[in-house]
Amino acid sequence: MSAKITPPDPGLLSLNTATVREKWNLREMIEGCARHGIRGISPWRDQLAALGVKEAAKMIRNSGLTVTGLCRGGMFPAADRKGRQAALDYNLRAIDEAAALGAQCLVLVAGGLPPESKDLKGAREMVRDGIGETLEHARSAGVPLAIEPLHPMYCADRACVNTLSQALDLCDQLDSGKGGALGVAVDVYHVWWDPQLESQIERAGDKRLLAFHLCDWLVPTTDLLNDRGMMGDGVIDLPLIRSWLEAAGYRGFHEVEIFSARNWWKREPGDVLGVMKQRHQECC
Amino acid sequence: MSAKITPPDPGLLSLNTATVREKWNLREMIEGCARHGIRGISPWRDQLAALGVKEAAKMIRNSGLTVTGLCRGGMFPAADRKGRQAALDYNLRAIDEAAALGAQCLVLVAGGLPPESKDLKGAREMVRDGIGETLEHARSAGVPLAIEPLHPMYCADRACVNTLSQALDLCDQLDSGKGGALGVAVDVYHVWWDPQLESQIERAGDKRLLAFHLCDWLVPTTDLLNDRGMMGDGVIDLPLIRSWLEAAGYRGFHEVEIFSARNWWKREPGDVLGVMKQRHQECC
Repeated sequence: MSAKITPPDPGLLSLNTATVREKWNLREMIEGCARHGIRGISPWRDQLAALGVKEAAKMIRNSGLTVTGLCRGGMFPAADRKGRQAALDYNLRAIDEAAALGAQCLVLVAGGLPPESKDLKGAREMVRDGIGETLEHARSAGVPLAIEPLHPMYCADRACVNTLSQALDLCDQLDSGKGGALGVAVDVYHVWWDPQLESQIERAGDKRLLAFHLCDWLVPTTDLLNDRGMMGDGVIDLPLIRSWLEAAGYRGFHEVEIFSARNWWKREPGDVLGVMKQRHQECC
Repeated sequence: MSAKITPPDPGLLSLNTATVREKWNLREMIEGCARHGIRGISPWRDQLAALGVKEAAKMIRNSGLTVTGLCRGGMFPAADRKGRQAALDYNLRAIDEAAALGAQCLVLVAGGLPPESKDLKGAREMVRDGIGETLEHARSAGVPLAIEPLHPMYCADRACVNTLSQALDLCDQLDSGKGGALGVAVDVYHVWWDPQLESQIERAGDKRLLAFHLCDWLVPTTDLLNDRGMMGDGVIDLPLIRSWLEAAGYRGFHEVEIFSARNWWKREPGDVLGVMKQRHQECC
C-alpha cells in the first residue's frame, strides 16, 4: 500500500541537529543545511547557548531556514518545590529562546520520575501542572508548545507521557479551545508501535499536529538511547504514517532526528545530510 | 499509599524458570522450589523438552507444585502459509504439553513482524487469526490461553501485542462469552508505564486475569532483553499494581520472571530463590 504513496516535497525536509551533533557545532549545521538545500532546522539548546541565541537567530534568518522546533523544554517532575520552580524557569527561558529564533514550536519532553520516586501518577500530575503554568507565557510569546510522547521505554527516566492519546488528553485538559498554543510532536520512533496511532493522529488534527519527526526502528536495537536508524534501515512504515498525518491536515516539515552512536554520529556530517535527503525521497 | 498494603500471601509465590535458567536445569528448579517452600513453578518449553514432559509432570506432581503457566506459545506471524502452519502446529503441541503438566495457562507471546515486513497491521491480524485457530484445541484440552502484552520495545521482533487494552480487545473478539479459555498475563515489566493500566486491569476482571508476573524496571536499563531487576530494585510500584489486580478479583499466583544477564543469572540459584522470597514479602 505504502509503495503507492507519492514521495514527499523535498522542501519539507528539516534537520534536527541531534543527528549531526557529534562532529558539527550549530554554525556548521546552519551552513550545512544551506549548502545542501535543506530548508528547515531544529536546534538543541546547548548548541544554541554555545553559539549565542542572537548570533544563531541572525545566521538562521540570513540562511532563509525555517526553525521547525526548538529542543527542548519540559522535564517538569521534581522531588520538591524548589526543583519544580527551577523546571518552570528553565521552560520560560526556553520559550524566550524559541521566540527569538521564530521557532514553530518548543518541543516538550515531559520528564520521568523524580529521584527515588515510584509515584508515576504523581509525576504525570506534575507534568500537567508544569505545562499549565508555562502555557500563558508561551501564548504571549507566540510559541506553541509541542508535547512529544516518548517511547514507553523512557517512562522512568525521560518522559512519563508515552502515547499520543495521553498527550492529547493533556492538550484537551489545558487548552480545550484548541487555540494553537498547545499540541503534539509526533516522532515515529516513539509511537510507531501504538495500535491507536492512526486514530489518535486523526483525533489530533492539524490544530494539534505541530511537528513530525523521522528516523527508523532498527532490528535489533542495541541501545535504548542512541541506536536509532536512518529512514529505510528499519521496520517503520514511514509513508503510511505520513499519509495519516496528511489525511489529518498536517502540512508541516519532516524533521529528521537520529541518535546513532554506532553509525551516523561517526560519519562525516555532510554525507549524513546527503543520505538523509535521498532517504527522505525514497523511504518516507 | 502502597506502603499501607499488606504483604502478599507467601504461598502465592511462583518461580518462572527463566529467572534461574543459566545455572539450573528443570530438575534442579523443581527440587529448588520444593526445598525453598515455593509452591508455584512456570517452566519454559526448552527445559521441559530436555527433562521430558512425562518425567517433568511426575516430578512436579510429586513435589506438590502448581504449574502457574507454561512458557510459551504464540509467535504467530510468518512470511508465508507454510510458516503460519508451522506456528499453528507449534502452538497445538504447546497446548498438549501444558495439559500434560496441568498448567493453569499457556502464555502466548504474539510474535513480531515477519522478516522484511513493515506491515504491522497485517502481523496483528495474523496474531488474531492464529489465536483464533488455536482456541478450540485449547478449550478441549482445558488449557486457558493467556495473551501476554509485551513492552512496546519488543513490537518489531517479539510481540506486536503491546498493551493490555489491545490484548483484551483480542479476547473480546475471539471469546466474547468470557468462557475462561482466553485471557491475559499481566507482567509488570511490560505494562507498568501504561496510563490505562488500572482501568484495563479492571476491565479484564478475574475471568480474564490468568497470570501475574513480577520483576522490576531498573534505571538505567542497559539492555533491551536481559536487564530486568529483582522486585524492589527498580521503579515499579508493585504493591499498587497488585492491589489493582486484587480489586479486579485476581487471587492467583505471583510469578517471578527475571531476565538478568549481568546480575541474577550469575548468582547461585538457591540464593536467588532466597532473595526472591524475601522481596516478595517486602516489596510486592
